[in-house]
Amino acid sequence: METLTASSSWQLLHQEMQRRWPVTPDELDAIVRYALLPAGKMIRPIMTLHCAAAVGGDPEPVLPAALALEYVHVATLVHDDIIDNDDVRRGRASVPAAYGVPNAIIAGDQLIFDAFAAITGSQHAGLPAGGVVAAVSALAEAGAALCRGQSLESRLAGDLSVGVEPYLEVARLKTGALFRAACQVGAALGGADPATIGALADYGEQLGIAFQIRDDLLSYTEQPDLIGKSTTSDLSNGRATLPVLLAWAASSPDGRTALTGALRDGAASQAAVTLVADAVRATTALERSYALADEYAGRAHRQLAVLAPSASTDVLAAVPGWATARRW
Amino acid sequence: METLTASSSWQLLHQEMQRRWPVTPDELDAIVRYALLPAGKMIRPIMTLHCAAAVGGDPEPVLPAALALEYVHVATLVHDDIIDNDDVRRGRASVPAAYGVPNAIIAGDQLIFDAFAAITGSQHAGLPAGGVVAAVSALAEAGAALCRGQSLESRLAGDLSVGVEPYLEVARLKTGALFRAACQVGAALGGADPATIGALADYGEQLGIAFQIRDDLLSYTEQPDLIGKSTTSDLSNGRATLPVLLAWAASSPDGRTALTGALRDGAASQAAVTLVADAVRATTALERSYALADEYAGRAHRQLAVLAPSASTDVLAAVPGWATARRW
Repeated sequence: METLTASSSWQLLHQEMQRRWPVTPDELDAIVRYALLPAGKMIRPIMTLHCAAAVGGDPEPVLPAALALEYVHVATLVHDDIIDNDDVRRGRASVPAAYGVPNAIIAGDQLIFDAFAAITGSQHAGLPAGGVVAAVSALAEAGAALCRGQSLESRLAGDLSVGVEPYLEVARLKTGALFRAACQVGAALGGADPATIGALADYGEQLGIAFQIRDDLLSYTEQPDLIGKSTTSDLSNGRATLPVLLAWAASSPDGRTALTGALRDGAASQAAVTLVADAVRATTALERSYALADEYAGRAHRQLAVLAPSASTDVLAAVPGWATARRW
Repeated sequence: METLTASSSWQLLHQEMQRRWPVTPDELDAIVRYALLPAGKMIRPIMTLHCAAAVGGDPEPVLPAALALEYVHVATLVHDDIIDNDDVRRGRASVPAAYGVPNAIIAGDQLIFDAFAAITGSQHAGLPAGGVVAAVSALAEAGAALCRGQSLESRLAGDLSVGVEPYLEVARLKTGALFRAACQVGAALGGADPATIGALADYGEQLGIAFQIRDDLLSYTEQPDLIGKSTTSDLSNGRATLPVLLAWAASSPDGRTALTGALRDGAASQAAVTLVADAVRATTALERSYALADEYAGRAHRQLAVLAPSASTDVLAAVPGWATARRW
């Protein structure tokens, strides 16, 4: 395989995705296809491929396993859209809005099972069974963490007094865990030793947390049509993102009461959205959020010292930068 | 390990289940525990253990992988109870009725991921990686089949003119596939050769179909409190079970219209339940359903010719009999 860049790996993954999900008359296939395609940035599978290559493995046989990371990611989006009652995703109707809740439950489950089938498919491509088992184990652990993150997030909803730590724990469980697994799967299938797999796992986890912080900042920095989903979903679901938590901590008692009220609003009225945005902008919450994202990105970057120089090492080194850039 | 009987293997599995799911303060743990315990008949994990033992393997290290089959089974029950809007399961509130739809979605997902984590856990118990990969692959394929079965069943809802074949296909996908995987996982982890794994896979699939036919007959032969779930759920969801399909085929045009109307009723009124039960009993539908269950059970039984005589072979040979018995 020729040297992979970030963009050529996206093309490769996209081709493989389309090959594996052709148009068929089957309704469930159509729903899964709708959930997966057109593909998003596929950052997790791209990291899997480049971790495999950066440790000296051939990324080609890792392709199906890399797609498994996207399957699990998309499955959680589909199920989260039911839980959060979100009608819009990637700029169009979410799966539950387009096909109903029962179909969305089934399509999400299907994607999870297909993810594990895709990883075991790597063995047919000649990868050793020990690496495949390690990859399955990493993905299963990440999936369990995702569920715990979703559950913890629901329990925290509406409470701004909990501080930053629970937010970071949710980010670690809901986003860090799957980034971590993306790197573990790539490194394990690429034949890395345990120390290298561990370093890349930590790289992925720190990067995932940075990425989540940055993602939560989009509501304050981008127009809704650019981010392709509702900017009020977090508020409607009482979800306190980092800027809101920081703004609450920096506010007067009256300001705190108003912020808590806006978060409990439920309907996420325009007034509530404006109130929260004003409170966030009245403090240093955005700057402090960027700074924390940069801190996690920096920690991620430092883990890469274990890798030999290569084109894929360069790609991995560049991700923390663009994942936390002020503009993409 | 001492010689396993059907009942000692249930005890062993139940102990392991309780050890793995202790009472904790975590809400998600509590929901998963509620879904899993008290345990049901655990027929799938019992088959996994006995398949492992029957091919000459040690069932002890297979215990976590055997529980994986129960996790996936229970996950599908939890998600099906959302889809079918069923409030009762195993004689008490279903998971969505007790904890709400969002928690039920997350708990089901958690069980699926835990299933794959449990199978990879077998490797720590010293089982070879190749067998673990085969077991993961079998479970992932079965899970995908379960989703396709659920989807096909929804599409068939309300239509009695489709005949028996689609019903059997749904039974194969929704029940046969996981019984098949239960046997594949046990045989693969027990170290069986491919031909033996294949025969036990077919045993499981045929047995699963027999089991599903028998399960669908319970509505006509048992009191609701004995089967622990709503006897009207199938009707409410327009689900045409084998006796209803056979009764429809044997009915006059007016009788067919009445049956179709009862199935489309939606609310599953007592009048609709009575109409369907009377129509079924007015024909040979129940006898013919029992006969078809016996036929599949017989096919399952014949697959066991590949096994050497042992206590576990005896257990496997006995299952088709009790799975299709008129009374349990």
